[in-house]
Amino acid sequence: MAKSKYSKVTIIGMGLMGGSLGRALLKKKLAKNVTGLGRNMSRLKVAKKKGAATHVTLDIEEGVKGADIVVISLPVMLIPSMFVQIQPFLDKKTIVTDMGSVKASIVETIKLFDRNRCFVGSHPMVGSEKTGIYNIKERLYEGGVCIVAGGNKKKASKIAAFWKKAGMKVIPMAPSKHDKLISGVSHFPHLLSFMLINTQAGTINKNRSAIGPGFMDATRIAASGEDIWAEIMIANKKEVINNIKTAREELLKIKKMIAFNKMKGIKEYIRKARILRESLEK
Amino acid sequence: MAKSKYSKVTIIGMGLMGGSLGRALLKKKLAKNVTGLGRNMSRLKVAKKKGAATHVTLDIEEGVKGADIVVISLPVMLIPSMFVQIQPFLDKKTIVTDMGSVKASIVETIKLFDRNRCFVGSHPMVGSEKTGIYNIKERLYEGGVCIVAGGNKKKASKIAAFWKKAGMKVIPMAPSKHDKLISGVSHFPHLLSFMLINTQAGTINKNRSAIGPGFMDATRIAASGEDIWAEIMIANKKEVINNIKTAREELLKIKKMIAFNKMKGIKEYIRKARILRESLEK
Repeated sequence: MAKSKYSKVTIIGMGLMGGSLGRALLKKKLAKNVTGLGRNMSRLKVAKKKGAATHVTLDIEEGVKGADIVVISLPVMLIPSMFVQIQPFLDKKTIVTDMGSVKASIVETIKLFDRNRCFVGSHPMVGSEKTGIYNIKERLYEGGVCIVAGGNKKKASKIAAFWKKAGMKVIPMAPSKHDKLISGVSHFPHLLSFMLINTQAGTINKNRSAIGPGFMDATRIAASGEDIWAEIMIANKKEVINNIKTAREELLKIKKMIAFNKMKGIKEYIRKARILRESLEK
Repeated sequence: MAKSKYSKVTIIGMGLMGGSLGRALLKKKLAKNVTGLGRNMSRLKVAKKKGAATHVTLDIEEGVKGADIVVISLPVMLIPSMFVQIQPFLDKKTIVTDMGSVKASIVETIKLFDRNRCFVGSHPMVGSEKTGIYNIKERLYEGGVCIVAGGNKKKASKIAAFWKKAGMKVIPMAPSKHDKLISGVSHFPHLLSFMLINTQAGTINKNRSAIGPGFMDATRIAASGEDIWAEIMIANKKEVINNIKTAREELLKIKKMIAFNKMKGIKEYIRKARILRESLEK
């Protein structure tokens, strides 16, 4: 694919995700002007200094005006309202996307306001537990997977092309399908991990040396930021609640097998899990 | 501590755990004679060739006779019956221990038969997903933690000294306390991991590229052997079932918070988990 340049890409929110994207776009010479729009000038100045933006501003109109693409890189709950705020200042050509890890609620809410049908949902599935502008990585997006969900078909294909130029593999998917999938492989696993460590709070402090690598692995994602993750759980509540229901039924089934010494059934259950997990290593 | 030599240590079961122990004892010159007792001569010969034993035998009497220490390195369900089989051939001085990851049921069952009170429970908390004699590691036990549970006090202190000589940190603990602790930090996390991957069976095969490092970490322990783990779940059923009950109640509590948009409560729940998990990294 030819590396056609964007004349202006605006990134709203210059944290790890936004900052790393800006820097990648500039390093790859994909955009002449990367404008960082935010609420805190001293942080925006850091972003500029770190090569994540060519321009920075606190002004919404100045920020988005004339942009080919606007990427809203904010927590999920703030994305629709930010769209409403920027809409009056968007050019006709401008396509707006986001980086939220929930799609149906965002896409559906924005659709209510989106007069030009200029919004396309994105979920670049990369990240790091180290957040903020000081931890940006030029290669954060390289080789990652981005789900593009919802929006006008032609504009969606332009957003897909954008992420591909940034180095990502793109998968188009309906927003509701995205949410079901991501709840299962990310949101719900986080919730299980929070639950696991919280139920062991009483023992782990007194028995640190009994904690092995298995527990450390299983709870690694429990060290995630509460502000972002509480929002995600609520924004994707339908699917997360479905996963909780399934898990409670499944645990009841396992409990019965254990209580009644159903060795064969338990073995088969673990065997299925082992084979599935091993298949992911290939 | 002086490295007093054992004249004979017998290891019953020459897999990863038994084989690695034998090799460590010989490399450290802690035992003159390490006898590997098993059911398969060709595998036992491999153990000898790999430096995990000085002698190997299929004969129980020959295997345990004159041993200072006998270590039963078999799956949990087989430990009590192996004890009963070897008991007639034990010397008065011999102390028997095991490596099972469940203690109360083993210690209590053996107590019913143990005429000389020669059994002391052990749980060296080391291992690897690569099992068998071909994967033995001389340094498997080095720096690990071993819980010593149950048995005559004087003999328990001798078994503690044995593990210390093998390079382990020893923690004495009542068998029931051990089982509660280990269910929480190991058995139940395994079960959650089996459950998580099994409930996602339908989606993960079709969406491999959506699976990130978080899901891989949370399910790593799901790739565990079903023979060993099904036995562990049943052998430690009381505590595992308690953990399942708690988890089901906890999931219901979380479900309600999400359903009713209790943002503050969810944040607090995740925050608690994050702080706990971060504390484990220190």
